[in-house]
Amino acid sequence: MGSQVARILLEDADALAARTGARLELTGIAVRTIDAPRDVDLPRELFTTDAESLVEDADIVIELMGGIEPARTLILRSIEHGATVVSGNKALLALDGPTLYEKADAAKVQLSYEAAVAGAIPILRPIRDSLSGDRITRVLGIVNGTTNFILDQMDTTGAQFDDALAEAQRLGYAEADPTADVEGHDAAAKGAILASLSFHTRFALEDVYCEGITKVTAADIAAAKDAGFVIKLLAIAELVPRDGADGTGTEGVSVRVHPTLLPRDHPLAAVHGAFNAVFVEAENAGELMFYGQGAGGTPTASAVLGDVVSAARRLVLGGPGRTETTTGHVPALSIDSVSTSYSIGLDVADQPGVLARIAQLFTEQGVSIETLRQSIHHADDAGQATAELRIVTHRASEAALAATVEQIQDLDVINSVTSVLRVEGA
Amino acid sequence: MGSQVARILLEDADALAARTGARLELTGIAVRTIDAPRDVDLPRELFTTDAESLVEDADIVIELMGGIEPARTLILRSIEHGATVVSGNKALLALDGPTLYEKADAAKVQLSYEAAVAGAIPILRPIRDSLSGDRITRVLGIVNGTTNFILDQMDTTGAQFDDALAEAQRLGYAEADPTADVEGHDAAAKGAILASLSFHTRFALEDVYCEGITKVTAADIAAAKDAGFVIKLLAIAELVPRDGADGTGTEGVSVRVHPTLLPRDHPLAAVHGAFNAVFVEAENAGELMFYGQGAGGTPTASAVLGDVVSAARRLVLGGPGRTETTTGHVPALSIDSVSTSYSIGLDVADQPGVLARIAQLFTEQGVSIETLRQSIHHADDAGQATAELRIVTHRASEAALAATVEQIQDLDVINSVTSVLRVEGA
Repeated sequence: MGSQVARILLEDADALAARTGARLELTGIAVRTIDAPRDVDLPRELFTTDAESLVEDADIVIELMGGIEPARTLILRSIEHGATVVSGNKALLALDGPTLYEKADAAKVQLSYEAAVAGAIPILRPIRDSLSGDRITRVLGIVNGTTNFILDQMDTTGAQFDDALAEAQRLGYAEADPTADVEGHDAAAKGAILASLSFHTRFALEDVYCEGITKVTAADIAAAKDAGFVIKLLAIAELVPRDGADGTGTEGVSVRVHPTLLPRDHPLAAVHGAFNAVFVEAENAGELMFYGQGAGGTPTASAVLGDVVSAARRLVLGGPGRTETTTGHVPALSIDSVSTSYSIGLDVADQPGVLARIAQLFTEQGVSIETLRQSIHHADDAGQATAELRIVTHRASEAALAATVEQIQDLDVINSVTSVLRVEGA
Repeated sequence: MGSQVARILLEDADALAARTGARLELTGIAVRTIDAPRDVDLPRELFTTDAESLVEDADIVIELMGGIEPARTLILRSIEHGATVVSGNKALLALDGPTLYEKADAAKVQLSYEAAVAGAIPILRPIRDSLSGDRITRVLGIVNGTTNFILDQMDTTGAQFDDALAEAQRLGYAEADPTADVEGHDAAAKGAILASLSFHTRFALEDVYCEGITKVTAADIAAAKDAGFVIKLLAIAELVPRDGADGTGTEGVSVRVHPTLLPRDHPLAAVHGAFNAVFVEAENAGELMFYGQGAGGTPTASAVLGDVVSAARRLVLGGPGRTETTTGHVPALSIDSVSTSYSIGLDVADQPGVLARIAQLFTEQGVSIETLRQSIHHADDAGQATAELRIVTHRASEAALAATVEQIQDLDVINSVTSVLRVEGA
């Protein structure tokens, strides 16, 4: 991405100057190794390994090195020098954003990071500015292209997770070590950033509940499809009214990442391949969706350059840094206090009375069943007839669901709980 | 919409103050008739019929009266008094935007108008700021909810235009006099605004080619459906490389509104009912889409309040007005210099050699046929066998198409040209 940003700054210098009111001179590019092979041909004299000196003289510092250190130190040094900072470093922002924002506020410099979430899609600026007079109630984001590609492959071809992952790796959509993507860590960092801007309160990575897609099976996808759903890995940030019975009376925000069943006619269900999309629900605006490419050097460079030109215009006009409010002070909710619908897969003995016993147990736990499908009959290894049940519940608390699942496993007619997935958007 | 904006300013005063850094005091509401019935209960003492005095004292003037006068005079007066102006007046902006922007620039005051295009959807700020470092090549917008509702009804139910319009009127999606919507005038005003921001050049209503949906028939919709298309009224702003053969060598922008065939798997094809969406293609970002509610008092109020809070934050911080560049200087192209694909419906005599004669004529005019479907055979009033042909062409210039259509009408085997529609997104 860094080399694409440099290329555009050089190639489109005239157009950018016209829009900014001043030429944006690329003074240097800090790299680890000057002679490393790069996909873009850039003037060799721009490269330096001395990042610390580079940031001392710059009006605008673009940080695209990723990782926590030395990125954090260099950003803090840039802020001290009064430079505007543009970053795409979601990991750092999710981990230690509050420190950086506070330093930038105190120094009255701008810190922007549109590229950190959903690549080319303008989503942070619309949330921060366009929706600043509204009250956002929920954000659902497909913010990781790798996992969306894998789940879309599984949905389209019926492939198992491992095969879809291998295909994604072959096509360059997944890295050799896919952990950060498939375990949901990347989406969780983006979820923390989206939640912070949406609810005017700073949330960090530790506030995000995170569950990846490695346990999603072809059978889960097929059963979901059968029932009119598609499975997506969503980053969800949701304003939850606290239950008055809690005695607290205050609301909270649940930030979570997990595989989620979505109705196939939901706008997010149509987001295929490695594309990203963020669905926003606001009190006045209603439902909004922002769609586009979530990764790739050139698309993400577009978001970086948008921040650079906006910041430069402001510098040219001599105005103050733009502001972000964090006066919301809503608490982050743990996953236990969230309630959603669930899709539960059960492998059960195919004998009379099983359905009644399961239904009875759900009722006792206060979890109401919306639909129950008994789909496949076959003989297990011991020659016993078994059936596969898929139960979709009405809204229930995570705690009630966990208790139900635990107790169900103890029933003698249950062979196994094959999957527990959450349903949104219904 | 005005009463919803007033309601939110009063009801959400605390939250807005927290985000702005200052209380937003609603000092007055200019109305034509103080005692007119309104859908929101507002303090009577805020109403005045003296708009001119009201704007003299305000820091921020919100203009939601619509129409050209007295809106224009009041906005100019507000700018003279140094007030920030937030407007949702697409007709005025499309007609006389350049005058207003210049006055605002000269006075260094902010003029923003997110609500003027696509209601609640944040689209102008993303184009102006987020994409300011990119090069937009094309914008396709479903920016009129009334016509999208009507076309969607026709597509879903097979209804004729008149019946779908009546249904839209019954449900409150269309006005008693639907001219501005169904003739495309409303979409054209929005097209001019989108084109101006996207191409850094000021385009006015007179630069927009405009064709409404009144001539779209149930047969057109059915034939499109059959061929895998959906018909949408699109506002299109497109960067067209001038043909070197012209001798000009410079590029231009085509801004146009017309019923358009879109492949059913295009993201805009899934925009149903009265929803709006804007699809943006940019050199680096690739394809982006912005989706949401395009009309309605409360959703549109969200866009107005976003502008108000953003402007107020800037006022509180003491910064300059934000800037919009108009250094693009690309010429507006007439519809004749545009080339797209076309879908042409023909009612022809069902006799040997007809297809060959038609194909021959297309070839002579340099218009290449992509698909040809001969769909319905029936006897006309005189008992002659006729056939209906639907031809989809490859890209051709509007001029070549017009010449082809004119000559086809002269063929003795042609009873009539039943429709000429443009195809995009294939």
